[in-house]
Amino acid sequence: MQHREIRALTFDVFGTTVDWRGTITREGERLGAAKGIQVDWKAVADRWAQKYVEARNRMGTWIPLDQVLHRAGEEVLEEFRIGGLTNAEPKSWCDMWSRLEPWPDVLPGLERLRSRYLVAALSNANTALSIALARHANLPWDQIFGTDTVRAYKPSPRVYCMALRQLGMEGNEVMMVAAHLFDLEGAKALGFNTAFVRRVGEDVGDPTTAPYVDLTAKDFQDLALQLSR
Amino acid sequence: MQHREIRALTFDVFGTTVDWRGTITREGERLGAAKGIQVDWKAVADRWAQKYVEARNRMGTWIPLDQVLHRAGEEVLEEFRIGGLTNAEPKSWCDMWSRLEPWPDVLPGLERLRSRYLVAALSNANTALSIALARHANLPWDQIFGTDTVRAYKPSPRVYCMALRQLGMEGNEVMMVAAHLFDLEGAKALGFNTAFVRRVGEDVGDPTTAPYVDLTAKDFQDLALQLSR
Repeated sequence: MQHREIRALTFDVFGTTVDWRGTITREGERLGAAKGIQVDWKAVADRWAQKYVEARNRMGTWIPLDQVLHRAGEEVLEEFRIGGLTNAEPKSWCDMWSRLEPWPDVLPGLERLRSRYLVAALSNANTALSIALARHANLPWDQIFGTDTVRAYKPSPRVYCMALRQLGMEGNEVMMVAAHLFDLEGAKALGFNTAFVRRVGEDVGDPTTAPYVDLTAKDFQDLALQLSR
Repeated sequence: MQHREIRALTFDVFGTTVDWRGTITREGERLGAAKGIQVDWKAVADRWAQKYVEARNRMGTWIPLDQVLHRAGEEVLEEFRIGGLTNAEPKSWCDMWSRLEPWPDVLPGLERLRSRYLVAALSNANTALSIALARHANLPWDQIFGTDTVRAYKPSPRVYCMALRQLGMEGNEVMMVAAHLFDLEGAKALGFNTAFVRRVGEDVGDPTTAPYVDLTAKDFQDLALQLSR
């Protein structure tokens, strides 16, 4: 990998940039306290993510991720028998993926990276969901690439290809940053440089034995440090 | 027009957000002083814009705007007999549209508007050019819509439609902001709200008699003020 060729970094968002499990657990605990609901909210969060990934993987016609997440969110409320909500609360609950909190290193890390590189979101979210989340969490993206423009999900080559086309760059000029090995493998197939960032509870694979991982970082600040060498 | 329905503002960029004529004139004068070249740089700027608009309008196969601008920039150098440049200078000259300066009201106006609305660039530029320009001028876009995703130019309905689709909004939830009447007419056809911003040397038409103009503002700060009422 030639650091000097890199001009842009593209970031996975759910799990890599924002802490979906932590935010949903905390929000759930707040809701539970207010409503007197006793549930394992971390299990709720995990089940929600599991359900949306399953739904996404088996889908015939492409559906935007915000809709997939909404449906899975409603199902989870039912599955865990979370009731007694007002009319507005289920919708607000299902919208939670647009209100997730970034990991603590993300904002300072991104600011530092952005001073040298173009930084873009390359999530499986549709554009509208990614914009809402970026506004909520103050993520300083130069651009957001949404999967709705190609109606496909990572690791489909169409998603990575769309990002390269819109950036007007070749794969060797871009680095994909993710906490999931499948994402880096998909990006590498299009010639991207790749950086694995380990996040608690995300990918359990071993990045050191994955031939498509160019760099492993503890977090976004460590990534900025390693790329400045 | 119902202000309260508006959730997002989409902005034209060249002429509306950034001052292409002023920047090119100043950069030209700087180059001229360094090289001892006597040219009417404002005429150079106007000719460059005229040539690119002509080229864009007559194009058969769609070409990204940065390429159209580059070719027109080279032709203008030749036409005005601007010579004695080093090897790197013509390319740097042709790249000027990624280094244009915003009008003085733009940054404070956008910051104020962004606190209430999603703000996005909806220029005829391709995504890569718009990103480069936004980074140069610190434009705080939540998102950039590039014409390369639909391979068409405004006022083609495909461009406005693409923005609505990616925003996940209806036209009545979005306001197009431009200093050119043709742009507002194109947006209105898709149901957008429209705001005309008068910029020196841009559209000479009369917005007060145009039935597709909902609001006229002196600049972006005035627009923020009017929308806060």
